Amino acid sequence: MATLARELLGEVLRAERMRQGRTLREVSVAARVSLGYLSEVERGQKEASSELLYAISQALGVSLSKVYAEVSELFVEAEAKSGPMAA
Amino acid sequence: MATLARELLGEVLRAERMRQGRTLREVSVAARVSLGYLSEVERGQKEASSELLYAISQALGVSLSKVYAEVSELFVEAEAKSGPMAA
Repeated sequence: MATLARELLGEVLRAERMRQGRTLREVSVAARVSLGYLSEVERGQKEASSELLYAISQALGVSLSKVYAEVSELFVEAEAKSGPMAA
Repeated sequence: MATLARELLGEVLRAERMRQGRTLREVSVAARVSLGYLSEVERGQKEASSELLYAISQALGVSLSKVYAEVSELFVEAEAKSGPMAA
C-alpha cells in the first residue's frame, strides 16, 4: 500500500511536538482537541480535519506552509523508496 | 477565519485537472471516486481521505510530494496576506 498522507502528517506533527519537548497533554489543551484525538492524528490513525489541523499547528506555533512543506519532503523520500511513479 | 487546508488542496487538484484539460467525469472515473465527491473536494467543501487523495493524485498522474509542495506554496501566500503568524 502506498504511503498515506495522514501518516506523514502525523509524523511531522509528532516530530515538531517532540522537538519542543512538549507532552500530548500540553498540546491537546493548547489546541483544544482531545488528547486521544491528537494521539491518533500523530500516529496516522485518524484524518485531521482542516480546522483541527489549523488548531494543532497554532498550538505548536508552526505555520501550515511549513507543515505541508515537511510532509512534501517525506513524500519525496517515500516515493523514492517505492520506485518510479507518475511524475 | 484562517485559510483551510482543504480549500488549498482543492485548488491545487482543480488547477492540475484544468491544466490537463480533463473533465471532472474523466478524473472521477479514473480515480474511482464519485463525480460529486471529487467536485466537493476541488471546491474545498469536503475533506479528502488519504486513500482518496492518493487515488485522485494517481488519476491525475501527479505525485503527492508535488501536490503537498504546491499546497505549501499557496499557504505561504495566504499567510503573507493574513499578516504575521507563528514562525
